[in-house]
Amino acid sequence: MASGGPDGGAAAVPAPVVAAAVPDASAGAAPVVVAAAAAPPAPPAEAAQAAAKEGNGGGASGGGGGGSAKATMVKVVKGARDVHPASMAIRRDVFAAVEGVFRRHGAVAIDTPVFELRETLLNKYGEDSKLIYDLADQGGEVLSLRYDLTVPFARYMATYKLTNLKRYHIGKVYRRDQPAMARGRYREFHQCDFDIAGAYAPMVADAEVVTVLVELLAALAAPSAAHAAVFGRFTIKLNHRGLLDAIFTVCGVPADLLRPVCSAVDKLDKLPWAKVRAEMVDVKGLDAAVADRVGTYVTRPAATLPALVATLRADDALCAAGAAAALDDLDTLAGYLSAMGAAGPVRLDLSLARGLDYYTGLIYEAVLTSPKGSSLGSVAAGGRYDTLVGSFSSTPVPCVGCSLGIERALALFEKASLGVGGVRENATQVVVATVGKGLLTERMKVAAELWAGGIAAEFGYAETVKVNKAVAGADRAGVPLVVIVGEEEVGRGVVQMKVLKERRQEEVPRGGMVAAVREALAGLRVNGAATEGGSPAGGAAKA
Amino acid sequence: MASGGPDGGAAAVPAPVVAAAVPDASAGAAPVVVAAAAAPPAPPAEAAQAAAKEGNGGGASGGGGGGSAKATMVKVVKGARDVHPASMAIRRDVFAAVEGVFRRHGAVAIDTPVFELRETLLNKYGEDSKLIYDLADQGGEVLSLRYDLTVPFARYMATYKLTNLKRYHIGKVYRRDQPAMARGRYREFHQCDFDIAGAYAPMVADAEVVTVLVELLAALAAPSAAHAAVFGRFTIKLNHRGLLDAIFTVCGVPADLLRPVCSAVDKLDKLPWAKVRAEMVDVKGLDAAVADRVGTYVTRPAATLPALVATLRADDALCAAGAAAALDDLDTLAGYLSAMGAAGPVRLDLSLARGLDYYTGLIYEAVLTSPKGSSLGSVAAGGRYDTLVGSFSSTPVPCVGCSLGIERALALFEKASLGVGGVRENATQVVVATVGKGLLTERMKVAAELWAGGIAAEFGYAETVKVNKAVAGADRAGVPLVVIVGEEEVGRGVVQMKVLKERRQEEVPRGGMVAAVREALAGLRVNGAATEGGSPAGGAAKA
Repeated sequence: MASGGPDGGAAAVPAPVVAAAVPDASAGAAPVVVAAAAAPPAPPAEAAQAAAKEGNGGGASGGGGGGSAKATMVKVVKGARDVHPASMAIRRDVFAAVEGVFRRHGAVAIDTPVFELRETLLNKYGEDSKLIYDLADQGGEVLSLRYDLTVPFARYMATYKLTNLKRYHIGKVYRRDQPAMARGRYREFHQCDFDIAGAYAPMVADAEVVTVLVELLAALAAPSAAHAAVFGRFTIKLNHRGLLDAIFTVCGVPADLLRPVCSAVDKLDKLPWAKVRAEMVDVKGLDAAVADRVGTYVTRPAATLPALVATLRADDALCAAGAAAALDDLDTLAGYLSAMGAAGPVRLDLSLARGLDYYTGLIYEAVLTSPKGSSLGSVAAGGRYDTLVGSFSSTPVPCVGCSLGIERALALFEKASLGVGGVRENATQVVVATVGKGLLTERMKVAAELWAGGIAAEFGYAETVKVNKAVAGADRAGVPLVVIVGEEEVGRGVVQMKVLKERRQEEVPRGGMVAAVREALAGLRVNGAATEGGSPAGGAAKA
Repeated sequence: MASGGPDGGAAAVPAPVVAAAVPDASAGAAPVVVAAAAAPPAPPAEAAQAAAKEGNGGGASGGGGGGSAKATMVKVVKGARDVHPASMAIRRDVFAAVEGVFRRHGAVAIDTPVFELRETLLNKYGEDSKLIYDLADQGGEVLSLRYDLTVPFARYMATYKLTNLKRYHIGKVYRRDQPAMARGRYREFHQCDFDIAGAYAPMVADAEVVTVLVELLAALAAPSAAHAAVFGRFTIKLNHRGLLDAIFTVCGVPADLLRPVCSAVDKLDKLPWAKVRAEMVDVKGLDAAVADRVGTYVTRPAATLPALVATLRADDALCAAGAAAALDDLDTLAGYLSAMGAAGPVRLDLSLARGLDYYTGLIYEAVLTSPKGSSLGSVAAGGRYDTLVGSFSSTPVPCVGCSLGIERALALFEKASLGVGGVRENATQVVVATVGKGLLTERMKVAAELWAGGIAAEFGYAETVKVNKAVAGADRAGVPLVVIVGEEEVGRGVVQMKVLKERRQEEVPRGGMVAAVREALAGLRVNGAATEGGSPAGGAAKA
C-alpha cells in the first residue's frame, strides 16, 4: 500500500523536492563515480556496476576499439541494476525477516501480474502518473507496468468481489523517475506491502498495521548491534486526514484549496515553515492570515497521542469543525497500541500530510532517527484508504495498510551486515577434495553422497585439484568443512573430514560420512558459525 | 537458460505445433469455461478468475448496468493471472524445494532487471523474437521485457567481465504468445534457471547440470505419494549438437539446410516421422533420399548412453564425419553421471534437436512419462551454449545450464497437493478468543505476547467475538490452537489453551503461555500436523 510512500527509499537528508518530469537524455544526468571494473572472477563490486553504467546510452557501437567497446554496449538499463550474489544473500535474509512479520500476523500472500491494463492505473497517482511505464502498442490490450502494489491489490479485491482479506505482497514496482542510485532511488524496486481489507470495528485493523510497522523495524534491527544502530531508533509519525481537514476548515482554507494546501504541508519534513507558507500564499493563492493560522497547528512539535489529543480536545472551534470524530479515533487507537505494546515510538505529528489523494483516515510514516532524534529519512509508510476498491467496483471495501520501501532498508541493512563480517554468497557446507592425480569421479561420488544426505557440497571441476588449494579456497569462501579422499582412503573405505574453524581432522568411515558431517555442522552452528541449513535434519543436534 | 525450452509449461499431449503470430484481437480467442463468480469472502477459485477474464477487453464501461458492469472492467491482463493465497502457499513450497537443490550445489543467486535494452535481446531468439514485449518509447532508452533468464545472464557475465560463475535465478519472464491457460501457457511466467559459466574439464559441469535436473524432479516428487505419481516417472532425453551435425553431414544435408533440418527434427516429439520428412522435403527442399537417410538415425529408439554410443562408434562414416568428438563427450558424460548417481533416467535420443541456434554441445530435456513410458510433456530443458556471452563481449565464456518451466510443474504440483489434503494459506498458529462481552484489548495483549514469542497469532477484529465461533473458525482454517481468556482468567492470571486436534483444553499461567504454546506446537509437529515455523525455537521439542 502507500504508493506515494517511501519510493524505493526516499532520500535521507534534505533532498531536491522531487525530480521534474523525466525523459532522460541518457548519460550525464546521474553523477556516477567512475571506478575500475572489478577483476574477474572476484564478485563484481558496486564500482564495477557503476562503471558499466557509464557505457554509452544506446546505438550499437560497431566493434571498433576492441573488447571494452563491445562490453560497454551491454549495459544494465538506466535506473535499474543487477543484484550481485552478496547482495542477494542479504536480500534473502531481509525478505525472510519481513515475510516472517507478515505471516506472524496471519496474512496470506497473493501475486498479481507486473503489468495491468493501462486504464486500471489511470487517475490513481495524480501528477505522478507521468512516471508510469507504458508498454508499446503491439496489438491487443493496452498495458502499463505497475507503479505500486496498492492499486493492483484494490483491483484484485474488486475483480474477485472479495469483502475482506489480510494479505502481504513482496514484489517489484516501476517508476520512470529520475534515478538517484546513490540515494537509493531506482526505476525498478521492491515494495513489501501488508494490508487489511474489510469492514471492522474502528481502529482495530489500523492498530495492527501500525504494530506490524513497529515489528518490521524491530526485525531489521535484530541481527546485530550494527543493525540495531541503524534500525533501532525510529519514530512512527502519525496523523489523521479528518483532523487535518478540520484544521484547514477552522483556519479558513477554502474548500478548493484543501488538497493543494495539504500537499504543501506534506513538504514540511524537507522544507522550513517559511518556504511552505510561501508556497501556500504565493503559489497557491492562500490568504496570508489563513496560512499563519494553519502554521499555528502544523508547526506544533510532535507528541504522544494522549498528550496532543488532550490539547486538541480543548480546542472547541477545532472540535466543532469536525475534529471530534478524528480525535475519538486517535484515542481509541492509543488504547489499542498500548494493548499491543506498540505505543512507544508513535507520535502524533500534525505536519504529516502524505501526498496521495486516496487516503481517507489515519496516515503514518516510519522514520529512522539519529541518536539526537533528528530524522534520517522514511523507510515505510501507509494509511487508511476506504474508497480505492470502490473506484473499481460498486462494493467499496475499507482498507488500511503499510509499505516498506525495501531498497533503502536493504542498502542500510547491507552496510550493517558487511560491517559485521563477511556475507556468505552460497550455501556450500563441504568442499570435496582428493589427494593425488585424477580421482575426479571419486570426488563426484562423495559429493553425490553428500547431496543425497541434504548437504550442500562442491567438488572442483578440474581433473586434478591440489588438496592445499582446495582447503585454502574453502577457507576463503567460508565453507566450514572439507572432505578428503585419496586412493588409500578409497581402498580402506574411509574419508578424512577437516573442520576448518577448529583446525582438526578426523577419519570417518565412508558409510558414516553424512552423519559425521551433519554432526560437525550442528556443532559449528551451536558455536555460532555462519553455516546454513540444507540438511533435512536442520539444526537438530544429537542428544 | 534454455529459452526455447519448456515455455511456462509446454503443452502435455500433442499440441498444435506452435501458435502463429500473435496480435490478439482480444476476447474470443481463449476458450475459457464460464463459471459463476466465487462468493466472497471465500478464497476465489480459478473459476472466478476465469469469469473475470471474460470481461470486455477494454474501454471504460461508463457505469450503466450496476455493479457487475463496473467489476468486469477491472480484469486481469490477458494471458497473465493473479495468484491466489492457496496457490501462493504451494508456490512457496515449490520454490523452496527448487532453490534448495540449486543451493545444495553451491550456486549463488543473482537478479537482473525485468527489462533490458531492446538491442540486448535482438537476434537471440530467431523467429520467436516477435513474442518480445516492447516498452513504449517515452524518451530515454529503448527497452523490452526479458524473454528468458539466459540472455540476461549472458549479458550479466559480459557486463562485469566475469569468467566463471555458478548461479541460479528464479524470476518472471514475458512472451507475447497466444495464451493457452488451460494448458499452462501464459504470457507472464516463472523460470527457475541454474547455469555454470566457465572453462572447465570437458563434460564435468554438463554432468552436474544433468544431475541437478534429476534432483529437481526428485524434489518435486518428494512430498507425498500423489506427488511421486506425477513427478516420479521421467526421462532425461539427451543429445549432442556435434553428433547431430555429423549425422546431417554424413547423410548429405547441404550446409545451408543444417539449421532448417535441425528445427524440423525438433518437432519429432509432436509429429510422426512422415510429417517431419514431408516438411524437410516439401517445405525445406531437402533431397528425398537424404531425408530418408536422416530418418534412419533420428527415428532410432532412445537408449542408454553406453548402448547407443557403442552402436554409433561402429558407424565409421559417421565418426569420420565428425561424430567421434561428440561420442567421446558422451562417453565421458556417461562415466560422470554414473559417479553422481544420475545415469538412471538418462537416454540418448537422436530425435532431440532443441530449436534455439545458440546451443553448441550437449542438449537435454526432462520429460514426465506415463506408467507405460509415453511422454506427458517436458518440464525442464537446457544445454551447452559456448558462444552467447561472446556475442556481448570479446571474451567468450562457455556456459551450460538448465531451466525448469515452473508453471507447468506448479500446476501439476498444486493438483497433487490439493489431492493430498488442504493447503494452509496462512501461518497462523493460535487464534486468541475471549469469553464474554468486550475484552478486545485483552485479546490484543495476548496476541502481542504471542507475537513477541515468535508465534503467529490472530485475534478477531470485532468488539465481541463468541468463543464457539472463534474455535469453529480456527478449526475450519486449520489453525491448531486457540487461547481463551475471560474476566475470570484475567483476574487469576491464567489462560485456557485448546489443542483442537487433540480435543483437549489446558489451563496455563499467563507467564508460561508462550512456552506452553511452543510445546503444544512441537508436539503436534512431531505427530505430523501441518503447522508451520515462525517460532524462533523452530521444531526444537524439549528433551
